[in-house]
Amino acid sequence: MSEYVERLDRALEAMELERIDALCLSVGSDLPYLTGYTAMPLERLTMLVVVPGQAHVLVVPELEAPRVDTSGGGFSVRPWAETEDPVVIVDELLGEARRVAIGDQTWTRFSLALQNIGWNRAWVPASDFMTCLRIVKSPFEIDALRAAAQTVDAVVDAMATVRWSGRTERDVAREIMDRMYAGGHESVGFAIVASGPNGASPHHEPTDRTIELGDAIVVDFGGHQGGYASDTTRMFVVGDPPEGFEAAFTVLRAAQEAAVDAVKPGVPAESIDIVARTIIADAGYGENFIHRVGHGIGLDAHESPYLVEGNEQLLKSSMAFSVEPGIYLPGRWGMRLEDIVVVTDAGVESLNVSDHAYRVVT
Amino acid sequence: MSEYVERLDRALEAMELERIDALCLSVGSDLPYLTGYTAMPLERLTMLVVVPGQAHVLVVPELEAPRVDTSGGGFSVRPWAETEDPVVIVDELLGEARRVAIGDQTWTRFSLALQNIGWNRAWVPASDFMTCLRIVKSPFEIDALRAAAQTVDAVVDAMATVRWSGRTERDVAREIMDRMYAGGHESVGFAIVASGPNGASPHHEPTDRTIELGDAIVVDFGGHQGGYASDTTRMFVVGDPPEGFEAAFTVLRAAQEAAVDAVKPGVPAESIDIVARTIIADAGYGENFIHRVGHGIGLDAHESPYLVEGNEQLLKSSMAFSVEPGIYLPGRWGMRLEDIVVVTDAGVESLNVSDHAYRVVT
Repeated sequence: MSEYVERLDRALEAMELERIDALCLSVGSDLPYLTGYTAMPLERLTMLVVVPGQAHVLVVPELEAPRVDTSGGGFSVRPWAETEDPVVIVDELLGEARRVAIGDQTWTRFSLALQNIGWNRAWVPASDFMTCLRIVKSPFEIDALRAAAQTVDAVVDAMATVRWSGRTERDVAREIMDRMYAGGHESVGFAIVASGPNGASPHHEPTDRTIELGDAIVVDFGGHQGGYASDTTRMFVVGDPPEGFEAAFTVLRAAQEAAVDAVKPGVPAESIDIVARTIIADAGYGENFIHRVGHGIGLDAHESPYLVEGNEQLLKSSMAFSVEPGIYLPGRWGMRLEDIVVVTDAGVESLNVSDHAYRVVT
Repeated sequence: MSEYVERLDRALEAMELERIDALCLSVGSDLPYLTGYTAMPLERLTMLVVVPGQAHVLVVPELEAPRVDTSGGGFSVRPWAETEDPVVIVDELLGEARRVAIGDQTWTRFSLALQNIGWNRAWVPASDFMTCLRIVKSPFEIDALRAAAQTVDAVVDAMATVRWSGRTERDVAREIMDRMYAGGHESVGFAIVASGPNGASPHHEPTDRTIELGDAIVVDFGGHQGGYASDTTRMFVVGDPPEGFEAAFTVLRAAQEAAVDAVKPGVPAESIDIVARTIIADAGYGENFIHRVGHGIGLDAHESPYLVEGNEQLLKSSMAFSVEPGIYLPGRWGMRLEDIVVVTDAGVESLNVSDHAYRVVT
């Protein structure tokens, strides 16, 4: 049985358990998870309609039908012509289904249209049960995550050998992207190069700011390789670090290491956040760690489980997620260290293994 | 008055006309159109809440708040912390609003949550009125589209001088992407390089197929420059074209030219499709032109107006869209020619002006 057919079968089991009559998937990773096919995020609707007891059908714009590979099995294709209304086609396929799960990232324009035409149906987010399938990775998936992690680790090491000062953030970011592609990534999601005061904004986008002596630089980047996401953060410093950096970095590194070491089956997701946060807060930087400690990763760069205060979900073997505490001093600098880790029966495996020390560059 | 404040005012006028009590915008281009800010497509909700008579508020994840530039004016920022629920915050801001317009591309997960918490509201797609604002471009926007078009035209010309045979589609696509960046694009949306039989799939993704003598190659690429989209298609042929290509290309070129020439204010959008389709069908290729003739373009690569059979909307001065007929012979080859054009008071201006002849390459 192909991996996709097996996943579809598990989805059907979960639907029965959750009393879901049908499943509609469009843009987002639930669709490629079940079929290998990724919908284009366009105004032309692509939607897989899964109704137990009938054939699964991928409703797809006619001109994209040739892109669909049905060899993995499990579904057939219903191309729609430019003058047809795909919402009507989906509604007909849904038939008597009353409680319908719909993919989280489906454009609201389409879900409103489906609600209007099928007014007697109840709609729920597909993630309510798809998450339970996707959160535990298969050996195939863990291998893919490991390969993606190795590529970004090699990029970190390579970037430690090049010149940084005198270049713009944007220029360095472009080099990182090029190296991700060269290393085997099929796509680049982002490359944050946040130098000096810019480092205090966790999701900073690279600018034309020129990197200079004394800058600490947050470098956080990732993309996709073999369909699975990479994501790592390391610190670079041009020359000597700025005032106060060294002491804070010692705290951050201890916090990140302790949080990774705390990962094992059976502990609540939030406990990993608490481990890092406690160390950082005890050192006086509690106000400066302004985000959760991590997010799950797989087909999506961000997915369940989220390692955040309030998430009491217990970690299980083969879950994969980031551990990435940070300390941000507005107007001065920021810092973050991030590894992707996998929960094992024995505890934890870190997929990112590049040196955690900040890299001194010229 | 800033461009954004003016756009927000026009949105408020349109809402009053359409009896919309509030507007909620998340991912998608309506938000940057009104504020200059683009929401990250993440599981953390970003949403602008516009309610006439009260301050407009951008609800944004705390760690993304530093990215928001409010200097254009018109709205304030409400950052939400990791442990808050942004759906509750949005619902409170909506107050007594009953009829709420919501951005087309908003994740269904969030619109379902908003529907559940605000069960007494009616939700409609924001595009119902936002489209009317965005469909007519300002001089600033037309200049931006023209600059983006000039970049991709230069890439076409450059690609006519390099070697193609012996390289994979993927390799050529990478070169095109690199040239788009080098030419000033801040992002690359896609680079279709569809060689030989692959050309028959209009949305083909570049593969490891090696380009060889006798291949006709559909090259369709675009991205964003200064926030606005580019999109052009030209044909490349290695050596002599395949059998039947020359005759069909003569038809295609005539059809594309006639369709562009038919553009002027006051004619229905579908009439442009019909002009191209009639010429192609009269030559016997009617079954082989399997998509609409064009799509609007602006902040989005695809937006209104859609030039498709059944769209009787009248063209107006300062609308911008693609004109891109194609002929596809499954198993053999495909061809398409595409320009972005702008409706002028006098008729039409083509923003893409690179030579339409197929380029013979080695």
